Amino acid sequence: MRGDSKLETKRTTIVLFSGDYDKAMAAYIIANGAAAYDHEVTIFHTFWGINALRKQGFVPVKKGYLEKMFGWMMPRGAEKLGLSKMQMAGMGPKMIKHVMKKHNALTLTQLIEMAQEQEIKMVSCTMTMDLLGLQQDELLDGIEYAGVAAYLADAQDGNVNLFI
Amino acid sequence: MRGDSKLETKRTTIVLFSGDYDKAMAAYIIANGAAAYDHEVTIFHTFWGINALRKQGFVPVKKGYLEKMFGWMMPRGAEKLGLSKMQMAGMGPKMIKHVMKKHNALTLTQLIEMAQEQEIKMVSCTMTMDLLGLQQDELLDGIEYAGVAAYLADAQDGNVNLFI
Amino acid sequence: MRGDSKLETKRTTIVLFSGDYDKAMAAYIIANGAAAYDHEVTIFHTFWGINALRKQGFVPVKKGYLEKMFGWMMPRGAEKLGLSKMQMAGMGPKMIKHVMKKHNALTLTQLIEMAQEQEIKMVSCTMTMDLLGLQQDELLDGIEYAGVAAYLADAQDGNVNLFI
Repeated sequence: MRGDSKLETKRTTIVLFSGDYDKAMAAYIIANGAAAYDHEVTIFHTFWGINALRKQGFVPVKKGYLEKMFGWMMPRGAEKLGLSKMQMAGMGPKMIKHVMKKHNALTLTQLIEMAQEQEIKMVSCTMTMDLLGLQQDELLDGIEYAGVAAYLADAQDGNVNLFI
Repeated sequence: MRGDSKLETKRTTIVLFSGDYDKAMAAYIIANGAAAYDHEVTIFHTFWGINALRKQGFVPVKKGYLEKMFGWMMPRGAEKLGLSKMQMAGMGPKMIKHVMKKHNALTLTQLIEMAQEQEIKMVSCTMTMDLLGLQQDELLDGIEYAGVAAYLADAQDGNVNLFI
Repeated sequence: MRGDSKLETKRTTIVLFSGDYDKAMAAYIIANGAAAYDHEVTIFHTFWGINALRKQGFVPVKKGYLEKMFGWMMPRGAEKLGLSKMQMAGMGPKMIKHVMKKHNALTLTQLIEMAQEQEIKMVSCTMTMDLLGLQQDELLDGIEYAGVAAYLADAQDGNVNLFI
């Protein structure tokens, strides 16, 4: 693998399982870095990771009772996610965003936009969407929809495969 | 690596560190998917991940005081695990299991059974068992017992290696 | 890749994102195991994972107000980290350290020392240090400082790549 590293396109795949702001940032920073390095990059959003792809406002779609409850309880879009550490009743995310602004760091929303510009393949897990009652209208445009088989098809040829 | 991908058996290894129901589900869904794709698959259960392998009832084994305490406090088997998000004092797991049933999704217990039928190598970390005072009689049948060296021997030839 | 596995040096890279004692232990146990197997090993500490590298005492450095607050709130060094599970208001870490001592298991501090002796490349993420206002004087000696590009340069040739 390493001998012919200059001849082939490298591939990075990330399973984004977590719905935490900081973990999603890490995922998108690595993904954007890999794309800048000319890797083919896939981010497979599953379970809580799909929340990073939700549109920010309320999207009127027909749903059952339990699906509505999940929809209400889960964060609506990237900037609503909490932190994996130091959440501190919501103060943590504010502090982090404050220092990010001060240092001109990209927000998660901007990192996601950059990923789309770099043509990173952003996939949402259909099984999770079924379970949690999320519909395609509720997610950002330009997302692909697939299951674990599609993930594995990319990952088995991946050079860097991460679960975040 | 990618040029000869049709000639060799692919390999997937997963370290299951987490004792969360949702993360263990993700691990077993990927593992079962990879096995269906003819990968050789190993799940190395370590730290809290071993709780997914515990038998559900009480198993009478001789233990010291601290080992007994760990045994009591940790979840006894797959269906007792909590969630990594939206635990909500136990309501989260009930909601998730309710929607899973509604959508005919496999429970973690069923995913583990499928893994055993697909001959996925399920390993329990001996160092962790030592530390937490878990004994082989307390775990499901058909589990292998090994340490980090055995994990690395599999992982260093792995195509998809994940830490969950 | 697998056919020529005896001819080349294997490589393991770990992103240590988590600031939990148990997860950092897992990272360092795998890293030390891989180094013992003659892998070239890199641990890239980012976000909360950098706290494992902090010196234990107070280090007087000039900082702004918010940076000071982060410095106070985050754990000062390996032995101050909490657990990802069973934290139980600080009782969990004490119980774990008690059983670790009883079984002569290495503490995280000792695992980090072993990693340095085995010449594992320990890197601290410069972007995170900027954001959280951490300075090189506050971290252990012998750490390298780099960003995501350096991580990817190592990881893209890695045999075992993990995100912890």
